Amino acid sequence: MPDLAFQDQLPGNHCWGCGPEVTTGLRLQSFWSHREGGLAVCDWKPRPEFAAGPQHIVYGGTLASIIDCHGIWTAIATAYLQADRPIGSEPRLWYATASLKVNYLLPTPIDESLHLEAIVTETSNRKSLVSCTLSAAGETTVTADMVAVLVRPEWFHE
Amino acid sequence: MPDLAFQDQLPGNHCWGCGPEVTTGLRLQSFWSHREGGLAVCDWKPRPEFAAGPQHIVYGGTLASIIDCHGIWTAIATAYLQADRPIGSEPRLWYATASLKVNYLLPTPIDESLHLEAIVTETSNRKSLVSCTLSAAGETTVTADMVAVLVRPEWFHE
Repeated sequence: MPDLAFQDQLPGNHCWGCGPEVTTGLRLQSFWSHREGGLAVCDWKPRPEFAAGPQHIVYGGTLASIIDCHGIWTAIATAYLQADRPIGSEPRLWYATASLKVNYLLPTPIDESLHLEAIVTETSNRKSLVSCTLSAAGETTVTADMVAVLVRPEWFHE
Repeated sequence: MPDLAFQDQLPGNHCWGCGPEVTTGLRLQSFWSHREGGLAVCDWKPRPEFAAGPQHIVYGGTLASIIDCHGIWTAIATAYLQADRPIGSEPRLWYATASLKVNYLLPTPIDESLHLEAIVTETSNRKSLVSCTLSAAGETTVTADMVAVLVRPEWFHE
């Protein structure tokens, strides 16, 4: 398994949250925590502009965004793993978010690197449930659950 | 009731989603749909950079973000309305998101102006439940439910 981020293995991704070439975006990068896969991790440092009302904590919308991307990429990478194929191989396995529930437990400090962990807890034919936690300085500040659905190739075109 | 956006009536908001002076941000603006209040509305045009994987639909993280801000401002404005005080008057009523559940029903086209509607469905002492819908070209593409909690003034300071 290469040490490239998941996002660097599947071209044509224009997502503001995780498109590798979207220079104004968040450019999230997700990896397996271990080479055998399962738990996916991501470390991300907020820019000061992504503040909430007060300037010392991170905006909840940005937290939902990075959780959304990291969760979707965990679903994609897990689907490739289960198909025993490298990420990016054809036919392309791409997921979209059907629903996202985010629980904000504590304010998330903006001056820390944020650590995300996600895992697929259940899969069926076209649907995966993903569980995600976000922590800062070792403390879990946000948890989330997502339903991700496999999308058809037409989703990529108008 | 003035025709200023809710966000323009409460100074010191540095939020990337709705801070009026955050020039790189989303600068969301929320209003009552009628002068007597109740239903809050917001129209917002996505910038092309806020794409999902494909470039013709809006990133789910951005949709969660604008719903988060519009929902919180609906909670704030409703709390001021119930207190029979103008928005921004002291003591300041400010809410933060405790949880946010977003349901993505359909892809949201990026070339349309998005219309948000939100209403507080239940309030208790420090907590409000907010229900929100997002539509594009007259079609509802996203629905959401939020738990908003009144925060203490200390929340604004490190």
